Amino acid sequence: MSELKNDRILRALAGQDVDVTPVWMMRQAGRYLPEYRATREKAGDFMSLCQSPEMACEVTMQPLRRYELDAAILFSDILTIPDAMGLGLYFEPGEGPRFRKTVRSAAEVEQLPLPDVKRDLGYVMDAVAMIRRELNGELPLIGFSGSPWTLATYMVEGSGSKDFRNAKALMYNEPEAMHQLLDKLAVTVTAYLNAQIEAGAQIVQIFDTWGGILSGSCYREFSLAYMKKIVAGLHKEADGREVPVILFTKNGGLWLNDIADSGCHCVGLDWTINIGDARKQVGDRVALQGNMDPAILYADPASIRSEVGHILKAYGNGNGHVFNLGHGITPEVNPDNVKVFIDSVHEQSAQYHGG
Amino acid sequence: MSELKNDRILRALAGQDVDVTPVWMMRQAGRYLPEYRATREKAGDFMSLCQSPEMACEVTMQPLRRYELDAAILFSDILTIPDAMGLGLYFEPGEGPRFRKTVRSAAEVEQLPLPDVKRDLGYVMDAVAMIRRELNGELPLIGFSGSPWTLATYMVEGSGSKDFRNAKALMYNEPEAMHQLLDKLAVTVTAYLNAQIEAGAQIVQIFDTWGGILSGSCYREFSLAYMKKIVAGLHKEADGREVPVILFTKNGGLWLNDIADSGCHCVGLDWTINIGDARKQVGDRVALQGNMDPAILYADPASIRSEVGHILKAYGNGNGHVFNLGHGITPEVNPDNVKVFIDSVHEQSAQYHGG
Repeated sequence: MSELKNDRILRALAGQDVDVTPVWMMRQAGRYLPEYRATREKAGDFMSLCQSPEMACEVTMQPLRRYELDAAILFSDILTIPDAMGLGLYFEPGEGPRFRKTVRSAAEVEQLPLPDVKRDLGYVMDAVAMIRRELNGELPLIGFSGSPWTLATYMVEGSGSKDFRNAKALMYNEPEAMHQLLDKLAVTVTAYLNAQIEAGAQIVQIFDTWGGILSGSCYREFSLAYMKKIVAGLHKEADGREVPVILFTKNGGLWLNDIADSGCHCVGLDWTINIGDARKQVGDRVALQGNMDPAILYADPASIRSEVGHILKAYGNGNGHVFNLGHGITPEVNPDNVKVFIDSVHEQSAQYHGG
Repeated sequence: MSELKNDRILRALAGQDVDVTPVWMMRQAGRYLPEYRATREKAGDFMSLCQSPEMACEVTMQPLRRYELDAAILFSDILTIPDAMGLGLYFEPGEGPRFRKTVRSAAEVEQLPLPDVKRDLGYVMDAVAMIRRELNGELPLIGFSGSPWTLATYMVEGSGSKDFRNAKALMYNEPEAMHQLLDKLAVTVTAYLNAQIEAGAQIVQIFDTWGGILSGSCYREFSLAYMKKIVAGLHKEADGREVPVILFTKNGGLWLNDIADSGCHCVGLDWTINIGDARKQVGDRVALQGNMDPAILYADPASIRSEVGHILKAYGNGNGHVFNLGHGITPEVNPDNVKVFIDSVHEQSAQYHGG
């Protein structure tokens, strides 16, 4: 078991004592940082940045040089898997992600190849290994993947969507085809996250960005069921420590009980739910991660500190809380406000621990 | 008291017996209908369509000629109020709504005039009166307004938004200014809905499209509180009948108990919550409206009928249900599928009433 200088987040995820509440930010390696934008420019297009282990490692490390974060998260894109399945991911400047090919019929699902993740996504594992070396035992590294349902929405639509009409039509009209697609994705995500763990990831998070656009029954059948399969198939340990799994469904507040029973170690919350109410619902089945509205980072330092205080107080005394935003940090945020946020979590949370 | 040939929806909203579950659709007068697109083209720009009582009346009536709907809803835009406050609403082709002026500071809020709704929005009341004459006692007419918070988001941003950064920054940094803006809007919305009722609206709905982007505590303070004020200030009766108020907060499923206590007669639900669970929460305090995913209208007739059946069954026996989509119908839907949907609600719901 390798020693970690700061293992707060692993302790919090295991429900163990910590001195202060650990904190990281979804999309912490990102466009709000001028040094990120500089590396991104050097890389040329976005995919070249993702596919260069050196540059992915560099941008992963950037926020850690500025802020007292309690974890690093691999810099990558959630759509590397569909790209490895041959759909041809690309980014139009100013637009979201796009695929050259879509998957919209049972026949197209049938033909979809299962990638060899260690070969076809080797650049990700190389980045993970390089980041672990660079971290040098200071902080744990989080690996991640998109959820099968979230990946499927992009693969069917060929891009982001406002109403996900094609993905939903496939789900309602040809549920067997959608299930086959989700099954292929669950197998691939499981292999992908296990490869990240083997390469050095010490925590993994599954991002279910679009589970919240479903009705409750569809969410359970088409999104949560596949995340459960993945959790069940992941390596339980690495370096002699448990590898905790964080499951984040945006707008999943109505389904917390089901998510907490998925086998995951921690449920990520967006900001629409009160974290104290969420804690009452899940009890000590799982840890909770979240849940400050990222838009508060546009406010002034006093408002940021006040909101941090509200969330810490709502969670209350004791263990099992990883502080985070309720969604990814947005590009226009002032980096100085991020420092206020991160420091404030540590400063204000000591009173809820130990003593 | 004027007689209505079909008063199912008024009976359902009052928790009274009906033969079958009444149904209407948010945005039922809209772009999915070729006859709407023809009128829209004739009008030139979208605002001219809204501002012509004759054309607004025509598009309001169009869906009623095709489908056995149980209510008409005034055709208008939710942003007529900010336009009447002098912000200059316009529509770029292919884009959402935009304002020429924004409201982003305490001084700008202070200067914002309260419109005289009967004068400045007289075209809306003229449309309401004309539609009532045209309906000729066949069906009740629903009037509507955007909620103060929803109107405020557009007024601060100057358009739609992905993260509402300016609206949220104003809310967090200058809560008094945001409260003053919301107060002005609540006064205006109350007068606007009362004028619609005087002109002939028999039901009113408040659309809180963007309440669901807030944390629970901000939702209660900045959105729900102002909708409560409006409900308290509305005319209780017209034509010797109660005028029920429907309150729809998209993504409001976590706050149903609070919404049910707002004084409204009915809570509109989006599709993410199970309507049976919602009914258990609200009991017989209020009726419920909803809540089929509009994307199901992209599916085949069998899937549409099946989903209608699931929702009716989840609601169960007895009164107090108005069937609707969980959000507005989208432009690309096939009008034939809408007929399947509407007829299916009536056909499958008889078993849950009377007997």
